[in-house]
Amino acid sequence: MEFKFNEEGLIPAIVQDYKTGEVLMLAYMNEEALQKTKETKSSWFYSRSRQELWKKGATSGNTQTVKNMSYDCDQDTILLQVEQIGAACHTGERSCFYRDIDLGEEPAFSREVVHHVYKAVKDRRD
Amino acid sequence: MEFKFNEEGLIPAIVQDYKTGEVLMLAYMNEEALQKTKETKSSWFYSRSRQELWKKGATSGNTQTVKNMSYDCDQDTILLQVEQIGAACHTGERSCFYRDIDLGEEPAFSREVVHHVYKAVKDRRD
Repeated sequence: MEFKFNEEGLIPAIVQDYKTGEVLMLAYMNEEALQKTKETKSSWFYSRSRQELWKKGATSGNTQTVKNMSYDCDQDTILLQVEQIGAACHTGERSCFYRDIDLGEEPAFSREVVHHVYKAVKDRRD
Repeated sequence: MEFKFNEEGLIPAIVQDYKTGEVLMLAYMNEEALQKTKETKSSWFYSRSRQELWKKGATSGNTQTVKNMSYDCDQDTILLQVEQIGAACHTGERSCFYRDIDLGEEPAFSREVVHHVYKAVKDRRD
């Protein structure tokens, strides 16, 4: 199948917890990262800032086991459904999307609450 | 808050069903689309192919009511949690991610099954 990589040779990959549906992060893959992810069933990305291939969790231990991969109608975005070991975010938050944008009213569901609870539970354990 | 728009002035926005967690699509926003989305609580994007602002569902009627918006640690990706009216994908599929990438084994959860069931139910209704 043909994927549409952008002018930098990259394609965005959304990473989602395969059980809870929580969106954990968005990162970019080049052709090699995509191949390695398919072969190893562990997430590999391409760092735009460091200009290098990286395996998610290689230093932190917070790896992602890929349970399912799909692609969108335009073939220019990938969706990974993973089992996340530890935190997905380098800040220590489980998801990179831990801050809400103010919509001027009480949100239907504030995901920040989940993170406060998660942190409280974690802090009391440690 | 400061978002990092890319060299084209765009930021990727992941769109997720706010109830089921299903990832529906990925599209791009410019500053104006972001403002309009916040103000109207309906999804607005910027079309890279047509080079214009568009309101999701303006022609199809398949609008998205924004329930929550968040942004990631790097401030270069947005997550919208929406109530999707009808199908999110222009193909008529509920999600743009209706095709799996073959990982060489039975996936833990094939989202294609959901679409087959959804279509069967819909076809029998119509």
